Amino acid sequence: MAEFSIIEEFCHGIGPDHVDTKLGVGDDAAIVAVPAGMELAISADSMVSGVHFFADVSPAKLAHKILAVNLSDMAAMGAEPKWATLALTIPEFDTDWLKAFSDALKVIAGRFELQVIGGDTTQGPLNLSITIMGLLPQSQALCRSGAMLGDDVYVSHNVGDAALGLAVLRGDVSLDDAYRDIVVSALETPEPRVTLGQSLLGVASACLDVSDGLIGDLRHICQQSSVSIDIDAGLIPLSDAYRRYLNNGGSLDLALNGGDDYELAFTASPSQRSEVDSIATQLGLSLTRIGSVVQKRQNAVSVSLEGVDYQLPTSFEHFS
Amino acid sequence: MAEFSIIEEFCHGIGPDHVDTKLGVGDDAAIVAVPAGMELAISADSMVSGVHFFADVSPAKLAHKILAVNLSDMAAMGAEPKWATLALTIPEFDTDWLKAFSDALKVIAGRFELQVIGGDTTQGPLNLSITIMGLLPQSQALCRSGAMLGDDVYVSHNVGDAALGLAVLRGDVSLDDAYRDIVVSALETPEPRVTLGQSLLGVASACLDVSDGLIGDLRHICQQSSVSIDIDAGLIPLSDAYRRYLNNGGSLDLALNGGDDYELAFTASPSQRSEVDSIATQLGLSLTRIGSVVQKRQNAVSVSLEGVDYQLPTSFEHFS
Repeated sequence: MAEFSIIEEFCHGIGPDHVDTKLGVGDDAAIVAVPAGMELAISADSMVSGVHFFADVSPAKLAHKILAVNLSDMAAMGAEPKWATLALTIPEFDTDWLKAFSDALKVIAGRFELQVIGGDTTQGPLNLSITIMGLLPQSQALCRSGAMLGDDVYVSHNVGDAALGLAVLRGDVSLDDAYRDIVVSALETPEPRVTLGQSLLGVASACLDVSDGLIGDLRHICQQSSVSIDIDAGLIPLSDAYRRYLNNGGSLDLALNGGDDYELAFTASPSQRSEVDSIATQLGLSLTRIGSVVQKRQNAVSVSLEGVDYQLPTSFEHFS
Repeated sequence: MAEFSIIEEFCHGIGPDHVDTKLGVGDDAAIVAVPAGMELAISADSMVSGVHFFADVSPAKLAHKILAVNLSDMAAMGAEPKWATLALTIPEFDTDWLKAFSDALKVIAGRFELQVIGGDTTQGPLNLSITIMGLLPQSQALCRSGAMLGDDVYVSHNVGDAALGLAVLRGDVSLDDAYRDIVVSALETPEPRVTLGQSLLGVASACLDVSDGLIGDLRHICQQSSVSIDIDAGLIPLSDAYRRYLNNGGSLDLALNGGDDYELAFTASPSQRSEVDSIATQLGLSLTRIGSVVQKRQNAVSVSLEGVDYQLPTSFEHFS
């Protein structure tokens, strides 16, 4: 089947047809309008077989994750996801695989009202790349550069489960079935914090997602805001599964540096505490204060546990 | 080296920093503003080793081509290229390769004033994917759906050289060195017709690039405009190299169906002939009238040569 037909058949009708979409799939380019007073946030994230996922992962989980990691970038800016292009390289034209993939794309794209407006399908080693676009009120983006001295540091939900899920899948850690399912789901089908990001506009001073690991990502805020951050490791929100792992001799390292959690970390003035609490209540999503922004020093992020310096493992810097 | 550093080092400063770029590389997303009265054209094109290029092609040629094929989609809409994201999957972290690739990206991005505002670098089998964005005056895009009965059909420069270049590289055809260089260049470093596309706004009724082959792509115009097209194969513009190939027993098939030429084919009312001629003169680029738009019939595109029906080879429909 020709490229054109593959795209037509499987990439058509993914997500709602937005009123600002002037031309969708089927021409040399799609055309969109950006409403007055709005700006466009744009981000791209890829996933490659054997690097970001095991080669035998189901197409449905793959579809979920590639959209989730991209949606998470919109969340981290406070943007409302609107459009995406999909570059899909697949080893062979397998209609069952494509249908399962496309059906799962439709579910999550529909949930987040994200419209796929273009793409390219190619034969080759499995590789997925999405460019996502979202709308933001002018000059209100949640950048990494806005953290101020004295701000609180928060993280949403909990961290460490995705890395623990990977350790479980690799056979490095064993957990009871119920816990195992929770941490593997955290790895394979993360929930992007899109509504949280938008709720934080005008509340957070800086924000990002902690996909590269909590501490490593907080360093980006430090660097771009010219500040440092103190974290109390005892405050870091952990799942029951992670606590079980801790009780069995595990360490906090995966929660601090593991990566692949698509939670938001953000800074906000202490004057916003009640506002942050009310967002947490409204969304039914815990937002935990784990530290504060301090004067810039050489060690960008320092972590203490029960008042004692916590020795950080080497940062999780994956080539991916 | 970590992903962050690779992107920072090699994908920073590619193309000019546009005034409408509110936030460039380095956050969870870039942010751009679309000026009042303008719309955004968006397109994505990928290239995979062994499918779109030989594995040993130089990084500089690869950089040129991946930008050119994407710029050509902007040209085909009449859009002014502005921004791009780059998803680059490379087998290993080879600084020489990356530097050559990045230097070549800078040259062509600079020439076409295209700013790379984001991307993702991953380890894996070589795979390049770009999403390109450009500006268009509201409701003026050159779509495939606008061809009208009686319109002329044009193609820019000439067609067939890229496919001939591929045949030469494969050893299927031999040509003198000078001709060989011309057709291999047509394949490896095509020139996107960006200025032509913008000049055709308000002049052409429908437009696309003929990257999938002249006749196959004209069929898209027929389908979307509910018309048919008659082509006089004797009028199709050919290079001296292609004519030499013809004289040596070659056929017109590569020019009709070969693909990988990034020329524009467009339709325009006969009342626009002098306007089209003056654009050709102004750009120093031949625009050749090769046929006309006729009433819709079963055979979307018919080709004649010296008054006799020309038997079309099977359409070049590559899975790529």
